[in-house]
Amino acid sequence: MKTAPAPALNTPAALADAVLRGDRRALARAITLIESTRRDHRAQADALLETLLPHTGNSVRVGISGVPGVGKSTFIEAFGQHVIARGHKVAVLAIDPSSQRTGGSILGDKTRMVDLSREPNAFIRPSPAGATLGGVARRTREAMLICEAAGFDVIVVETVGVGQSETAVADMVDLFMLLLLPAGGDELQGIKKGIVELADLVVVNKADGDLANTARHTVADYRHALTLLRHGDWRVPVLSCSAITRAGIDSVWDTIGEHKAITEASGVRAARRAEQARAWLWSEIRETLVDAFKAHPAVRADLSALESRVTGGAITPTAAARVLLEKFLGRPVE
Amino acid sequence: MKTAPAPALNTPAALADAVLRGDRRALARAITLIESTRRDHRAQADALLETLLPHTGNSVRVGISGVPGVGKSTFIEAFGQHVIARGHKVAVLAIDPSSQRTGGSILGDKTRMVDLSREPNAFIRPSPAGATLGGVARRTREAMLICEAAGFDVIVVETVGVGQSETAVADMVDLFMLLLLPAGGDELQGIKKGIVELADLVVVNKADGDLANTARHTVADYRHALTLLRHGDWRVPVLSCSAITRAGIDSVWDTIGEHKAITEASGVRAARRAEQARAWLWSEIRETLVDAFKAHPAVRADLSALESRVTGGAITPTAAARVLLEKFLGRPVE
Repeated sequence: MKTAPAPALNTPAALADAVLRGDRRALARAITLIESTRRDHRAQADALLETLLPHTGNSVRVGISGVPGVGKSTFIEAFGQHVIARGHKVAVLAIDPSSQRTGGSILGDKTRMVDLSREPNAFIRPSPAGATLGGVARRTREAMLICEAAGFDVIVVETVGVGQSETAVADMVDLFMLLLLPAGGDELQGIKKGIVELADLVVVNKADGDLANTARHTVADYRHALTLLRHGDWRVPVLSCSAITRAGIDSVWDTIGEHKAITEASGVRAARRAEQARAWLWSEIRETLVDAFKAHPAVRADLSALESRVTGGAITPTAAARVLLEKFLGRPVE
Repeated sequence: MKTAPAPALNTPAALADAVLRGDRRALARAITLIESTRRDHRAQADALLETLLPHTGNSVRVGISGVPGVGKSTFIEAFGQHVIARGHKVAVLAIDPSSQRTGGSILGDKTRMVDLSREPNAFIRPSPAGATLGGVARRTREAMLICEAAGFDVIVVETVGVGQSETAVADMVDLFMLLLLPAGGDELQGIKKGIVELADLVVVNKADGDLANTARHTVADYRHALTLLRHGDWRVPVLSCSAITRAGIDSVWDTIGEHKAITEASGVRAARRAEQARAWLWSEIRETLVDAFKAHPAVRADLSALESRVTGGAITPTAAARVLLEKFLGRPVE
């Protein structure tokens, strides 16, 4: 990163060419470009993405979530090596809104996934820094497109198991996988409400040694619960594996392949991707509008006092919203 | 409704006085006022709500959802009569974004809840008409406040079991109840994904006659599933009842009382209401901003074409959002 870039990568067109050739340095540079908040960089990033867009979409997009301690890194290392051994190229991205690049957050830690990171057919990128989940998610989505253009055909998007970011990941992948511990229910495992409902695939990790028997019970329990709560054509499978012994990793990959085949044939996958793109558009619009609203001087002056009056029951939310919106829009609302 | 209003109700202050006295005609008029979309009515409605606000909040707010055929009307009739017999006053409101006042949608049908509607201590109001769920939800929230000011201490907000509106109802009540059929899992019952996760209380209705045994199995199955997926202090109870024979209605009401006692003591209820008010404020702000955005002439001209290009993968959502937002805000974004 400290060496001067080769002149050939200094324009979006040249950078795009190098990405499409699978040049790893160009790939890293392209992602750094889309992560930049400088306005001139953003214009270059847009030009780059426009060029790359026709070459994207040809990957299996897999989201992986699980609470700290479930063994996500070890699982992704084992999973990535398994997939590479079958002739694929794997990119591992991460979403962690709490991440500071310099901190020890997920994927920022250099000691993680040591073996996978040495594979020529693997590309690992820590979570982009960012104040808002929306900003982090957008950069990860765009990084995913760039990895696809660079020839990576399996994209893993990892997230920490802390709530909102799971929804963001589920909204950008073809299949959302939840890793569980061999243990009791959600509460015992520390899984936030609603996360299990997002899963297309549930995998109980650490099914080895003393925990093998507990893992079997956990699989049976979740299988039963998910059968009752199931929706649509795809019956959410509950598998077990050991990232340490590597037992069961093959079934996880095979199941992802089945899901791909079924959802491609039914058109569900294409429809999900189109809906994800539309949702992404509207989330960008909403987020930017709210940012502009919050940044408006008259809104900033009154917002926190009005918000307190609303939560304290002294004014209705509708009336408070109207006061603020009329300041922002400069005209009566409704 | 056809008779001329008494002069005494013609100002917000007079109307507020009459509502606070528990005058039913004033209550109906006040709700009609907050449902109006006329700007001068809106100003009067704001004044009315401001006066009433200190007298609101003293009710148990119960949301009830369930797919068509689960027996919601019959349940609410039995439940309402049970609660009135214990000395309470019950208001039944509804959220149905598809409702046209003249159509035969939920609660619009005059043949529903015939006995409950004759009770002097019951007040039943159909879903307000409205194009957007946000608008319908806001009017229902405000109607709830007016009913509280009029002395109703149990508010039932009913919704059809068709997705988005359940979230809107769960976001305005203290306890969200899901009615189930004696049958297999969610898919068989037609319950949308994520709805069971919203429930604070699950009740299997029609536990009578030939279905009694099936109802027992359904209770056991959901109890098991929800034990696994449980979160927080409140363990979601799964009960059964028969709205026809009225068996089990008492347990439902007792359980609502338990929930009230526990969540009041822990402060969870007050925190939930404050958070609901804040979320309502931001949803009003977001919705109005998006409406203003969509109504902007330059946005209207390009929106649908750009949206198609986004879902078709010809442009990134970020780039499309930027094009539209710069038109709306009249300046570069980010």
